[in-house]
Amino acid sequence: MRILLTNDDGIYAPGLRALRTELLKLGEVVVVAPATEQSAVGHSITLLTPLLVQEVLDEQKEFLGWAVEGRPADCVKLALLELLPEPPDVLISGLNAGSNSGINVLYSGTVAAAIEGAFFRQTSIAVSLEYTKPKPLDFQGAAAIARRVIEQILSHKPEKGSLFNVNVPSLEKGPIKGIRTAPQNVAPYLETFDRRIDPRGRVYFWTNPEFGCPDPHPETDVGALSESLVTVTPLQFDLTHHARLEEMKQWRWEM
Amino acid sequence: MRILLTNDDGIYAPGLRALRTELLKLGEVVVVAPATEQSAVGHSITLLTPLLVQEVLDEQKEFLGWAVEGRPADCVKLALLELLPEPPDVLISGLNAGSNSGINVLYSGTVAAAIEGAFFRQTSIAVSLEYTKPKPLDFQGAAAIARRVIEQILSHKPEKGSLFNVNVPSLEKGPIKGIRTAPQNVAPYLETFDRRIDPRGRVYFWTNPEFGCPDPHPETDVGALSESLVTVTPLQFDLTHHARLEEMKQWRWEM
Repeated sequence: MRILLTNDDGIYAPGLRALRTELLKLGEVVVVAPATEQSAVGHSITLLTPLLVQEVLDEQKEFLGWAVEGRPADCVKLALLELLPEPPDVLISGLNAGSNSGINVLYSGTVAAAIEGAFFRQTSIAVSLEYTKPKPLDFQGAAAIARRVIEQILSHKPEKGSLFNVNVPSLEKGPIKGIRTAPQNVAPYLETFDRRIDPRGRVYFWTNPEFGCPDPHPETDVGALSESLVTVTPLQFDLTHHARLEEMKQWRWEM
Repeated sequence: MRILLTNDDGIYAPGLRALRTELLKLGEVVVVAPATEQSAVGHSITLLTPLLVQEVLDEQKEFLGWAVEGRPADCVKLALLELLPEPPDVLISGLNAGSNSGINVLYSGTVAAAIEGAFFRQTSIAVSLEYTKPKPLDFQGAAAIARRVIEQILSHKPEKGSLFNVNVPSLEKGPIKGIRTAPQNVAPYLETFDRRIDPRGRVYFWTNPEFGCPDPHPETDVGALSESLVTVTPLQFDLTHHARLEEMKQWRWEM
C-alpha cells in the first residue's frame, strides 16, 4: 500500500513522526508536509507567493519526503500533481496535536488537507489527538490506536474519494473506552478575546486559548470524545443545504 | 436594519465600497474587514499573533468601521464579540472580486466569513462577482444586482443562522439572464503548477492562475454562472456525510 502522509503542524512535528512509524507497518509512506507549523489555517491555499520544496531525510538518513513552504492543502496539490511518482492508495493527515471536532473541523488545516485529497478523489483520513493539558502528549500511544482505526476503515474498502475524520481522546484522561462513529457537533463555541493597548495607544486583541463547547450532545464527535471514545466521522465537502434548496426552488425571483 | 459588512479583499477594496453604497439603501452598515487582502485564506483564524484593530472613515470622513489585521473569520468574531454595540440583523460578506462557486467555496475567505457568522447564528450572505478578464470589474453594476438579490432573500424571513452564497456573473459577458437557486458543483478543478529553479538551485512552484472546471453540470452554481445566471446557493457547515454515517453504524470496531 502506498500512503501519502501530510499534516498541519509541520514536517518536523512529533505527531507526524509517530504516525509515520506506525503507518510503515502498513506500507510505503511518503511525507509531503508544510515546512513550518500551519495550525488553524483552514483550507488556505497559496496563490501569490512561490512554494519552495525541499527533500527531507528521517532520523536514519532515509528519504522521508518533501517539506513545502506553504499550506497543508498546497502540500496535497503538489504531492498529487508534481511530486509523487505514482498516486497513493490513501492520504493520511496527522497526527495533529489537538482534536479537530465540532465546528473546529472548519478551522483545521489537518482536515483541510484531507478534504483537498478528496477533491482529487483520493481516500483521505484526518487524524487528531485531543489536547487536554500543557504536558507532552503521548503521540506514540495515540499513533498506534490511530493506525488500528485506519486499518479497520480501509478493510471496508471505501470508495475512492471517501473522507474520514478520526479523533483520539487524550490518553492522560484515562483508558480509551472504544470507537464510535459520530456526526460532527454543530453547536457554537464559547470564545473570548483579551483586549489590550499597545505602547503607541493602539487597540489590539489576543484570541484567548480557552474555548468551550458546553454540554455537547453525547451522540456527536465532541460528546463522544469527552467520554474517552475514539471518534470516526465520515465527511463530505458539498456545503449545499439541500433541504433549504428544495424550499427555495419555489421562490419567485425578480431582476 | 443593521448590517455587518465584511470581505476578504480588505477594507479598501472597491467591491466592498460599492456594495456598502447599495446596502446603505437598506439600513445602517458597519464594516469590520481585514486591513489587507486575504484572498484564498479559507477559514483561517489567528491564534498566535495579536489582532490590531483601527477605526476607518469613508470618503466623506464618516465612520466606516474597523480594519482588523487578521483573517475574514477573525473580523466576524471580533465584530460580534467585541466591536459592535448591538448584534446585526444580517451579515454580508463581499462583494468579492472573483466568483466563489464549486469547490472554490472551500478556499474562499469571503464564504468563510459568512460561515463564521452562521456559527454565531447570524443570517449570513456571501456575495461574489465573477472575474473573466484582466479589466476593471463593474462593481457598481454588480453591487446593485447583489442588493436586489439580498433584499429578496431577506423578504422570505429566513431563520436565524441561515447561510447563502450568491454569485453575480461577469457583466462583460453580456446581459444577466436571471437568478437561479443551484447546488454547489463538486467536480474537481483542472489545475497546474509552474516548476522553476531559483538562483541557489532550489526547486519552487508557482500556482498557475488558469484553472478550469470543464463541462460543469448546468444545474450547479458553476454551470448556471457560466450561462450568465446569478446563482443563489443555501449553504450549511455540517460536513458529516450522513448517508455514509448510517452505513458505518453497522461496522464492528475492535480496539
